[in-house]
Amino acid sequence: MTGLPGTAAAPGSARDAACDAANERAVARLTGSRPVLETVAPAVEVVPGMTDRTVLVSGPPLAWRRYAGGQRRAIIGAALYEGLAGDEAEAEALLADGFVTVRPSHDHATVGSLTGVCSASMPVLVVRDEATGRRAFCRMNEGADRASLTFGVWDDGVEARLRHVAEIVSPALAEVLGRMGGLPVGPIVRRALAMGDDLHSRHKAAGTLLRAEVLDAVLDLSRQGVTRRYRALAAYLRSAEYLFLHVVMAAAKAAADGAAGVPGSSLVTAMNLNEREFGLRVSGLGDRWLTAPLPPVTTLRGRLHDDWSTDDLAYVGGESLITETVGLGGMAAAAAMPLQDHSAGSPDGMIRATERMYRITLREHPDYRIPALAYRGVPCGIDVRRVAETGVVPDIHLGATLRDGGHAGAVLFRPPLEPFRQAADLLSAEPPLAPARPGDPL
Amino acid sequence: MTGLPGTAAAPGSARDAACDAANERAVARLTGSRPVLETVAPAVEVVPGMTDRTVLVSGPPLAWRRYAGGQRRAIIGAALYEGLAGDEAEAEALLADGFVTVRPSHDHATVGSLTGVCSASMPVLVVRDEATGRRAFCRMNEGADRASLTFGVWDDGVEARLRHVAEIVSPALAEVLGRMGGLPVGPIVRRALAMGDDLHSRHKAAGTLLRAEVLDAVLDLSRQGVTRRYRALAAYLRSAEYLFLHVVMAAAKAAADGAAGVPGSSLVTAMNLNEREFGLRVSGLGDRWLTAPLPPVTTLRGRLHDDWSTDDLAYVGGESLITETVGLGGMAAAAAMPLQDHSAGSPDGMIRATERMYRITLREHPDYRIPALAYRGVPCGIDVRRVAETGVVPDIHLGATLRDGGHAGAVLFRPPLEPFRQAADLLSAEPPLAPARPGDPL
Repeated sequence: MTGLPGTAAAPGSARDAACDAANERAVARLTGSRPVLETVAPAVEVVPGMTDRTVLVSGPPLAWRRYAGGQRRAIIGAALYEGLAGDEAEAEALLADGFVTVRPSHDHATVGSLTGVCSASMPVLVVRDEATGRRAFCRMNEGADRASLTFGVWDDGVEARLRHVAEIVSPALAEVLGRMGGLPVGPIVRRALAMGDDLHSRHKAAGTLLRAEVLDAVLDLSRQGVTRRYRALAAYLRSAEYLFLHVVMAAAKAAADGAAGVPGSSLVTAMNLNEREFGLRVSGLGDRWLTAPLPPVTTLRGRLHDDWSTDDLAYVGGESLITETVGLGGMAAAAAMPLQDHSAGSPDGMIRATERMYRITLREHPDYRIPALAYRGVPCGIDVRRVAETGVVPDIHLGATLRDGGHAGAVLFRPPLEPFRQAADLLSAEPPLAPARPGDPL
Repeated sequence: MTGLPGTAAAPGSARDAACDAANERAVARLTGSRPVLETVAPAVEVVPGMTDRTVLVSGPPLAWRRYAGGQRRAIIGAALYEGLAGDEAEAEALLADGFVTVRPSHDHATVGSLTGVCSASMPVLVVRDEATGRRAFCRMNEGADRASLTFGVWDDGVEARLRHVAEIVSPALAEVLGRMGGLPVGPIVRRALAMGDDLHSRHKAAGTLLRAEVLDAVLDLSRQGVTRRYRALAAYLRSAEYLFLHVVMAAAKAAADGAAGVPGSSLVTAMNLNEREFGLRVSGLGDRWLTAPLPPVTTLRGRLHDDWSTDDLAYVGGESLITETVGLGGMAAAAAMPLQDHSAGSPDGMIRATERMYRITLREHPDYRIPALAYRGVPCGIDVRRVAETGVVPDIHLGATLRDGGHAGAVLFRPPLEPFRQAADLLSAEPPLAPARPGDPL
């Protein structure tokens, strides 16, 4: 995976200096982010550009006819869930003629886990970056069951769980968050990194910290008695291990959107998957997606549930990679030794993985630190130039999905190198920019 | 610290074989323990041999006149707290003539943190080992304030906090534990070891897991409204970071008592401190304490609060070392990277510390495992023969106390080698025992 560092452009060139300065501005926005979980609300009420007939989905844009697996099943499920169609055939027809519109989440300040499917009435977590005022969104997950819309399943059980979360659990959580005045996300991330979480495939610590905070607030709100919906919220928090992942995803999306669009910057601002392709966005290249076909599922590494092998897996999309974009997940492998069997395979491997990630990143995060690396900050801000120069791609911790849908475990995913190279080439083909001067506003 | 391994006795001798067999029986009791936190109750109601005029205290026995520092202050405080004396002078007189009796905790199935002072009406955590039916006890700590009886302080604030915990918080916790049918301790220990806790100087994970479980049960009990004492319990759990330490201490004491008294066994069953001496008990030597003067406080290593140095410290006793006796605390340093500045100083140092502890222990714990060591079990069951042979003493994570009382931070303590050598000598001076045969009851 290694190449020759520092050979992509002559050091000290005007273009390099301009890119360095642009990257400084962009990555400062990533590390300066101050996310607060504000509330949870139906998508149509808060997500920009959302309509009753929109279905958000993970990944770079893909024509409807090309969806064939878990994302297709989940999109059809969402159309049925919203009552837009009476049966699958009708849903297919409405999707084919564009009455129901499939839209990339990322263009709506939203990120989605695995299939990433989210429709109008589904609740989204609302995270606001206090440093910029920017909001971003991620659908509230439907609980711990392996069969879920997230993992490409649609059936009566999935529908019932989605309705329970939308109608009972989410309003209760919204009330609690209102009482708390919002919940700062950064302190939980910081603490969880010292407690074995990578904040992508593992958030046992973060989830427990969140749960304790929320239960405390529920007690505060319940002097006259604990209502049914608060008990439902408590039960949800006991089992919905992945809730905090979705909070971090929205927080990371808000930070990454803040870092997007800096002319000349080679900072990665989004990575995602649909069923077929890996997608990459880079700050200096705006909203353009650079894509490449996904590697075979058999190249995924890591322990799966039961006796499944990587042969049983299929890609169903995914945007939880936004956590790697801000230095968490696979980038912070050294913080999460309990994930070793799902990632680099050994404690030393986890250490070496994060050490390798410093070669392709711009900063060590000032607040998010790794005790096992003597409190070095997580490698934050992936630089496509460095990826292109070194041939080292980001290590990504990903949820694995069965071919017929359902959660199969957690794996290590290495994205294709090509889009990073392509982005580096595009940036170096642009005319050099004047470097920012000291005193220029960030 | 290293010596010549394997030189204390000729390998294969009858005495060695008998000792090995005895150790197998003894250490199986340590690792087979299944502790459950049953309840919390006033000491006089549950602690064997406790009377209204007993003050339990940490450490090997010491004559009353020899207590001069934090333990003396705390013992006098306890006498005043119980209303046995009207003022300090009267308390001193009653202690001098034995009307108020100072007793070593360990002889009452109890362990104490730092000073270890516990009197009749103070609440103790009650842990039952389901494998043996044995119960052990540890005083419920009085909250997060640095000034506490635990840390050798007695004043109006300490008294008020002790009464609040005794009269409001503890009855609420007892009610909740009753509703829960007790709380198994092992699963929390197991999970916390994967979340950065050593379960002695750090239990942020264990404490949060406990807190979430208790809050859930409080919600369950509060359908008609949350009472004042439940809100007090929730507030206590938010701040009383060290609560779970005291649960683990009682659990470890129950396990260690189960492993005590095996003829011929060289297994350590207790280590403790009073103001002046380190004390050691060994399974095959029964209730006998082997003691040695404490090393100067300036030999303690680790980061202290504020700008204090080890010069500002004093010994005030301590029995939280019972956690090291069962393989936690300093023995499990590699699990607790966030403690590096309070212990071995670096991530590598923490790994090497635990690796060194395998040289002096009998088993790797089958359930308590360390992700950073590829899930190797914690080094469990200290063998005084191996300590004597190698010169390696157990690494102990200890709370540090200021000379005038109060919590000063967390440090690394290395006990004197002499009592371990003395114990090994005593055991080898005894007539060899017949080795246990296969099929003998454990």
